[in-house]
Parts: sequence; structure tokens; C-alpha cells
Amino acid sequence: MPTITGTGRMPGNRRARHHERDGKMQTMTICHAPQPGGPETLRFETVMRPRPGPGEVLIRVGAIGVNRLDAMQRAGAYPLPAGANPILGVECAGEVIEVGADVEGISVGMRVAALLSGGGYAEYAVAYWRHVVVVPADWDDVLAASVIETFCTAHETLFELSRLSSGERVLIHAGGSAVGSTAILMAKHIGAEIITTVGREDKATRLRAWGVPHVINYREADFSQVVREIYPDGIDVVEDFIGPAYLAHHISLLRWRGRLAFVGLLSAGITECDVSLVLTKMLQLRGFTLRPHSPAEKAAVVERFRQTWMPVLAGRAIEPAIHAVLPISQAVEAHRMLEAGDNFGKIILCP
Amino acid sequence: MPTITGTGRMPGNRRARHHERDGKMQTMTICHAPQPGGPETLRFETVMRPRPGPGEVLIRVGAIGVNRLDAMQRAGAYPLPAGANPILGVECAGEVIEVGADVEGISVGMRVAALLSGGGYAEYAVAYWRHVVVVPADWDDVLAASVIETFCTAHETLFELSRLSSGERVLIHAGGSAVGSTAILMAKHIGAEIITTVGREDKATRLRAWGVPHVINYREADFSQVVREIYPDGIDVVEDFIGPAYLAHHISLLRWRGRLAFVGLLSAGITECDVSLVLTKMLQLRGFTLRPHSPAEKAAVVERFRQTWMPVLAGRAIEPAIHAVLPISQAVEAHRMLEAGDNFGKIILCP
Repeated sequence: MPTITGTGRMPGNRRARHHERDGKMQTMTICHAPQPGGPETLRFETVMRPRPGPGEVLIRVGAIGVNRLDAMQRAGAYPLPAGANPILGVECAGEVIEVGADVEGISVGMRVAALLSGGGYAEYAVAYWRHVVVVPADWDDVLAASVIETFCTAHETLFELSRLSSGERVLIHAGGSAVGSTAILMAKHIGAEIITTVGREDKATRLRAWGVPHVINYREADFSQVVREIYPDGIDVVEDFIGPAYLAHHISLLRWRGRLAFVGLLSAGITECDVSLVLTKMLQLRGFTLRPHSPAEKAAVVERFRQTWMPVLAGRAIEPAIHAVLPISQAVEAHRMLEAGDNFGKIILCP
Repeated sequence: MPTITGTGRMPGNRRARHHERDGKMQTMTICHAPQPGGPETLRFETVMRPRPGPGEVLIRVGAIGVNRLDAMQRAGAYPLPAGANPILGVECAGEVIEVGADVEGISVGMRVAALLSGGGYAEYAVAYWRHVVVVPADWDDVLAASVIETFCTAHETLFELSRLSSGERVLIHAGGSAVGSTAILMAKHIGAEIITTVGREDKATRLRAWGVPHVINYREADFSQVVREIYPDGIDVVEDFIGPAYLAHHISLLRWRGRLAFVGLLSAGITECDVSLVLTKMLQLRGFTLRPHSPAEKAAVVERFRQTWMPVLAGRAIEPAIHAVLPISQAVEAHRMLEAGDNFGKIILCP
């Protein structure tokens, strides 16, 4: 069960509908990062409420997923893709309150989760209808906002890129992070053999309780040595949130036809790469980043999530980890929590 | 047309059949590399003629494809995969003269091309039947031995790994090599935009005559600068025979969702890799090497070649480049030619 902090809006606690039938513009509060800096630079501002254009829906936001890239964007370390909404927040859940032209299968009153090009840290957000998933009636907004970005990212990297299959050996770093813990749940669901790394013993305990057989605290042991001891002949897949610092280890640990996906870069810089091992073991190294996907590419990602994982989630065969639910007034605290690595699973903000 | 040197066996010049119905063991001459060294270390020896086991066919070899890995193996720079035949030669063409148990669709008298686990530099070679392609009646052994390894390698890397599609921009290095020139023919066939590099002006002239729009002589210009001038916004695919020395250039030149296949390593050493560019552009870097494929994997490769390219080749829509046809007694000269980079296209030996 998630730790509920503050007064996040829960199911049943819905505001009265107030559609803008007269076309009068209304305002809303948003949270943004007007200049690069630490969590304390986050500011709240009143702006015009957006209206949905053709192909778009307007969502009254009930819950917002906090992502590492929000913190990177806030810190000025994430160049926005062309055309992206500069307001923080790339995913949200809530109720559809207005539907633009050329939208199929989504109507006012439906409860949804959505990937956004930005603009999630707000009371109202506009989403392209193909980036929206209608959620089951028994889901609250917190659950809905917890799954879309993490499940899309973990699915695309583990399965679409790395083609992880049952019985294969997968090393998943950052096992306590939102995407890392989701990747673990997915890999477990399909029957892969999981090794994961964490930096805190409480997270290791949580993951062992999930039944993950090999949990390595990288502050206490050399992860690559432990992996080598567990699997002397190597591993098949790496879900890599670290990047440069571990590349040489990963290329060494992967065996014939091994695959690695760069999902995040918790380390920096240019690193060494032994191309001859990449060639002779037929390794595959791939980068992944969701936000710069074109609208059509992102629609395909959402569709794969809907078809593959929504039935699993709806049947409660997987329960994502939710670390904390905070009111958006505590966005500073949410960013601090994320950057300190305090969280096990998703951090959610509620407007 | 290929330059015919020496007295390679041509169609119509077939030897009389002499099946071994009585089971008596017979001998044959092979070419091998008893100790690591230059081309002059190649030796001829008389050994027992092999017999096909279950799932195998015996081929009376009419033509042998010379590959760079033959030269690497001769020089001691290629560790043999477990179970590989230590005699040089990974492809041949000729006539089936004996068929083991459990072979489907291949019978005595058929003319075939085959991928081998080794043992091609010989008068007789044994092949697993799923690694054999029956060739059209109007093909000679030279043509048959010229296509199987190059087409399998170029297809697997350009299409199965890099998913090159029509209209995409592909940089193919070593445009005059057997695999490089084959990759150019394939990319042209499907309508990709081709840039290629060569080290000699006569090869550039040949490739321009093929209609390749961008041929760069890397001895006269900085290839990466020229590519950047032609395509300021980057390229989609790299067919890379170079490896470490060019990696930073390639990562820089590739654009969103770009793919690179390491097919050969004409440069050596550990190189620098900018993982952040791999991630933010969603690049894919993959290694490829055919020989260590398992028999089942290699069978799938041969099947893809058969289905995709045999009809194209049979219809003469593509004519592979054959540089020279030499008697196997001139194997030393063939290896010298290859290692000097004198060839435009395939070098063939005939026993």
C-alpha cells in the first residue's frame, strides 16, 4: 500500500463539473521552473486554462506522476524537444471534461491516464487522444498516474528493444526506482531470471519480499563481481539506468546475443567501449527516451501498453509500487525525495 | 564481368561422378594454415575425404569463397568457435555427391552453395543440409560460391539488424569489399540513399558506374565531414567494417533512431563512446558475426537469404562483383590480394 501524505484527491472526491460551454476563458494554477536550479526554484503561477484542439482532450487532473526528467528539466539539464509544452509534467490521470474534434472512443466523464508533451503539473492538461488510456472503473487517479509512463518505458525497453523472454537472465539496475521496480514486476510476470541493484538496504528488503532472487546493494558489493559469481557464463539483458560508468562491466557480463537498453544516465561522461566484444558476442546496445518520440511513435507506445499491460494491471496480477502521494503544494518535497533516491516506486502529486 | 585468372573450373567442365558406393575411404587435397603467419604459411596436405553424417551432404567443391576471416584464421587472429572444422573455408559451391540420413529436398547431382563451419578449402566438403541452397541451372559454381556468405552477412546486418528501408540514408564502408559491394547492391535494390567509402580511386570509379551517388575516397577526404556536408541533419544506418576508429564519428552522424551494425573490425582497440548521444537519439549499435551462429541460427540465416535474395539473383536483377577466380594452388596469392585490399568484390578459389 502506498504511503498517503497530504490531501491528494481520491476517488469519490470529485469536483463538480464546470464545462466551459460559453467559451469564456478560465484560469488555473500550474507549477513550473522559471529558472534552472534546485527543487526550491519551483514556482506556482496562475495561467489561462488550456482548451483542447482537434484530436485533443482536456483532462481535469487528479494525479500527476513525478519523473526524473521533471527534475532534470527543472535543473536546466534537459533540453526540451521542439514543440513541447514547457510546463513540467509528462503524465497525469483524471477526468475528461472536454473533447476536441476528431477524437475517437473518448468522451466527457471518462477517467483516463495520459502521456503529455508537458503541462502535467497543473489543474487541467491537454492530451492528444492517442496518448490517452481509459482506466478501469475501480482505479483511482493515483494508480492511473502511476503506471502510464513507467509501464510504457519499461515495456519499450525490456520487450520492444531488448526482446526479453521467459527464462532469460536480466540485470535491472535502480530496482527501487519507479521504472526499475516496474521492469522487475514485468520481468517477473513473464518468468525471466532477475538480478537487481539498489543503493539502500530497505529497498533490498522490499525487493526480496517481492521474491526477487538476486538483490545486490551496490554500496556494499561490486555488482559486476556478484553477477559474475551468480552467472559465470553471463547474462542476456541489461536494463541500464546508469550509462557510462558501467558500460565496460555490462559489455563484459553480457553473453552471446546479449542486449542492453540505456534508459537513464545516472552517471555522466564519455566512456570506453570494447567494440570487438560487441561484435564477437553479437551484442545489441540501444538508447531509449520517451519524450522526443513523435506523436505517432508515442501513440504506438501507448497502444502497446494498452494491449499488453492494461489487462494485466486491470486483473491486479501486478501491483505497482507507489512511494508517496503529495499535494502539488509539496512539489518541492517531491523533487527532493526523488533526487535523494528516497523513493521505492512512484511519487505522485495531486493538484 | 569477373576477371578470370588461372584455370578455375567453369560450367560444363565437370568431373566424372565417382560416388563411394563401396564405402571405401578416399583421400583429397586440402589447403590449411598449420601455424599462424602470413599467406606464405598456407600448406597443402592430403587427408581422408569426409563422409556425410546424419543431416549432412557431401559436396564435390567447384568453387570456394575467400573471406577475410580465412585470412584472420590463417594469421592466428581468429579463435575458432567450439566444434568448428579447423580447415580454412566457410563457404563453397559444387555438386552434391552423397546425402546422409535425415536430409530433405537435396539429392545427389544437385548443384548447391553452402555455408560451412570450416573445411571449404578442399576438394570435398561436408555441409549441414539446412545451410545449403540449391542454385539455378544456369549458375556456375563461381557465381554460387560468390553470393552465399556475402548476401547472408549483408542481409542480416542491413535488414535483420539495422532494418534499412527505402528512402533511408545508409553509409556503407569498404564499398569495394565483397560484403560492402553486396550491401551497396542490396541497398540500391530496395531504394535506399547510399554513401560509401573506398580507399582507391579505381574502386570509386567502379561504384560511380554502378550509380552510387556519394562515393568518398577516405584517403583524400575526411569521410565524416563529407557525410555531414551531404546530410547536415544526419544519416539513418551505418554498415560498419571499421569499428573503434570511427565510432565517435558514427554516433555523431547518426540521427534519431539511427542504427549501426559492426560487421568487421578493420581498426583495433578500445574506443570512446558517448552514451548520452546513444540515449537521446535512440541509437542502436549491434555486432554481427556469422561463423559462431548455432546450426539452427545459421539455418534461419540461410532460409532468409533463400527467400529474400535468391529470386532477385536468379532473375539477374543483381549481379555480384567477382574480382578474381584463381586455382586453389594460388591460395597464397588470393590471401595477399585480399589483405592488400586489391579486390573489388569477391575472390574465388577453385580446387
